[in-house]
Amino acid sequence: MKAKNAVYAQSGGVTSVINATACGVIEASRKSKKIDKLFAGKDGIVGILNEDLIDTSIEKSSEIKKLMHTPGGAFGSCRHKLKDPKKSQKEFKRLIEVFQAHDIGYFFYNGGGDSQDTSNKIAQYTKEAGFPVTCIGIPKTIDNDLPFTDNCPGFGSVAKYIATSTKEAALDVKSMSKSSTKIFILEVMGRHAGWLAASAGLAKSSNNSAPHIILLPEVPFNEKSFLKKVKEVVKKEDYCVIVVSEGAQYKNGKFLADAGTVDSFGHKQLGGVAPRVAELISSKLGLKYHWAVSDYLQRSARHISSQVDLDQAYAVGKAAVEFASKGENAIMPIIVRRKSKPYSWDIGKVELSKVANIEKKMPQKFISKDGFGITQSCKNYLLPLIQGEAWAPFKDGVIDTASLKNKLTKKKLKRFKI
Amino acid sequence: MKAKNAVYAQSGGVTSVINATACGVIEASRKSKKIDKLFAGKDGIVGILNEDLIDTSIEKSSEIKKLMHTPGGAFGSCRHKLKDPKKSQKEFKRLIEVFQAHDIGYFFYNGGGDSQDTSNKIAQYTKEAGFPVTCIGIPKTIDNDLPFTDNCPGFGSVAKYIATSTKEAALDVKSMSKSSTKIFILEVMGRHAGWLAASAGLAKSSNNSAPHIILLPEVPFNEKSFLKKVKEVVKKEDYCVIVVSEGAQYKNGKFLADAGTVDSFGHKQLGGVAPRVAELISSKLGLKYHWAVSDYLQRSARHISSQVDLDQAYAVGKAAVEFASKGENAIMPIIVRRKSKPYSWDIGKVELSKVANIEKKMPQKFISKDGFGITQSCKNYLLPLIQGEAWAPFKDGVIDTASLKNKLTKKKLKRFKI
Repeated sequence: MKAKNAVYAQSGGVTSVINATACGVIEASRKSKKIDKLFAGKDGIVGILNEDLIDTSIEKSSEIKKLMHTPGGAFGSCRHKLKDPKKSQKEFKRLIEVFQAHDIGYFFYNGGGDSQDTSNKIAQYTKEAGFPVTCIGIPKTIDNDLPFTDNCPGFGSVAKYIATSTKEAALDVKSMSKSSTKIFILEVMGRHAGWLAASAGLAKSSNNSAPHIILLPEVPFNEKSFLKKVKEVVKKEDYCVIVVSEGAQYKNGKFLADAGTVDSFGHKQLGGVAPRVAELISSKLGLKYHWAVSDYLQRSARHISSQVDLDQAYAVGKAAVEFASKGENAIMPIIVRRKSKPYSWDIGKVELSKVANIEKKMPQKFISKDGFGITQSCKNYLLPLIQGEAWAPFKDGVIDTASLKNKLTKKKLKRFKI
Repeated sequence: MKAKNAVYAQSGGVTSVINATACGVIEASRKSKKIDKLFAGKDGIVGILNEDLIDTSIEKSSEIKKLMHTPGGAFGSCRHKLKDPKKSQKEFKRLIEVFQAHDIGYFFYNGGGDSQDTSNKIAQYTKEAGFPVTCIGIPKTIDNDLPFTDNCPGFGSVAKYIATSTKEAALDVKSMSKSSTKIFILEVMGRHAGWLAASAGLAKSSNNSAPHIILLPEVPFNEKSFLKKVKEVVKKEDYCVIVVSEGAQYKNGKFLADAGTVDSFGHKQLGGVAPRVAELISSKLGLKYHWAVSDYLQRSARHISSQVDLDQAYAVGKAAVEFASKGENAIMPIIVRRKSKPYSWDIGKVELSKVANIEKKMPQKFISKDGFGITQSCKNYLLPLIQGEAWAPFKDGVIDTASLKNKLTKKKLKRFKI
């Protein structure tokens, strides 16, 4: 059978190692006899719909290798969700047109839960339409909420960033607490699952050390018990470090961040759970505070990525191509944990139909009794994922990253309106 | 002359390399024939007043060496400013009591402008009181606002953190801009001088690359021209990265951060210039944004310290002891730039009386014509300071830091009420 072309697209929020996955896909595609040319969708699936296909074959191998230390999405990503083909087939038909026009037989979609669902739908649709395209989903999400896989590429690096930053900032506030700041609050990502906030717990070396309080979306926020705990910690340690998930919420599901703050024009103020928690402590306990919101810094901090995460991100990309070359379809490569101590893992697979619409939250046994910390079994799970420092090369004092040409291949179709 | 004891204290906001200075002071003291025992003030000068003197002589050399990669202040710091002896001599008299009780002949004070002034006053006062103590100020401040010295230990590491974080986050937002976030705002420290915000400019590799806008305290904020610039950048690049100094202010001196936001109870909301700028862009231009406030993370991020900064932080500590051993008094070691390309420097000195109460702001020639960026001459100044990656050792996936005993020496005096 003649080799076909392939297309790879990045989807959703990017990570510090999603380009390592791209590197795995590109390098494996170059080796595969089943794949001729590999395109990348410019800005994700939107680029495929627009027939904006980046020709990766003209990029030098040395530049592709630099993707291993380039954060962000090298080809662009998007938050566009395809319409359900049961409701509207317009986008799916367009995809087939593009696939046909460019002789594409393989589709690699690198994203979270929604993207896996989309990959599955494309596999089914193209098969039913008589132009079957091999669709492989590739896991990626800092939220770590995909099922079946031991963890999600992208997560371990943010976990390492958070654990280290928490330890560093805690040493700072500890040294200032005698006469100045007593409270430090770090806000981290995680709208629905507390995996990232939980990872701050890896900075804790003893019962008394920071972080003293972790606020997870899985545990309803109780103002009274929270303030009591802050008071206790400050009394004992003279300072208190709090790591709060952006998704921390009250029992009724209302986010702490959405607490009705208005600006001077009466506009509702958006975001920032850390300043909310700071205000609460200030108004109720009168303690001096500092707060940080790491936002994009945490998920783009390639300078402190986990080596395990980087290796796994590359491995799932490579495996996706190898599975496709072996004739697999509608699956997602997963990371299988063989052992925790010492950590060993390999690559398995799961059917995309099983992945869709399952969100893996923190299990109860990972959350400490008082709800403000993590258990030893949670530590045992998380610890291997932040191992190894994947130092990046620096140039002129800042991180050195890839500069791809990102040249679009010639269009063959009419314009499409998304 | 019999060797005397010495005392070292950390003052003001701590940095990721202030403990490297402590390491320099301790190692040089252990070598000096003029110095017997070195104490450290617990929580800075407050500890000296309280006679809380940490005996550094019982710490192992290997643990002292670990101070080179331990952020925060290992002995504690404080924001306590001594009263002017012309107004109240109580604290100065107490210092002499403590110095006498513990046979202290040398005082090393590691801090910013205020601390240098304090060191100078102590030198004068002890001399006039007939118990002369050698006082050496040691420069430290991430604000980089001390005069005479080429730069201030602590600054280069934050500059490196900001430049790298800006580059990383810019790659993130660039990949999301097609269908999601178009604006990213990073708030950095710097209440009066824009050195830290300016350092983000080192991430800029071409005219069009991020950061696109830097808001400095030195340039009065003009809403109209700012919004015009944001619009232009987004039109051309599809995204815009803004780095804002916490001290950014209007022409009348009012801080942007202090823009009258109230919470749902009508309390005035404190801090956060990044969310203010975000709201402005959202309400006036309707663009989707993300913002980050790095706060303590930036100044404690030892995992990405500049090697040049680390070397200089150590060098000023070592030099302080060596100057004192040679009979110098009431001076501060400074960093002298010999050449920018390639960067070469050595240690000089300046009289403390000259340092006091001078704040070094960004010179006009370092600020671009439109006020939103830095010039080549600013880059030439800043670039050497972020060179070299002073990687720290990691243990179990997080940065490994020193664990000092911090044992207090036996008190000989009555309690003092500060």
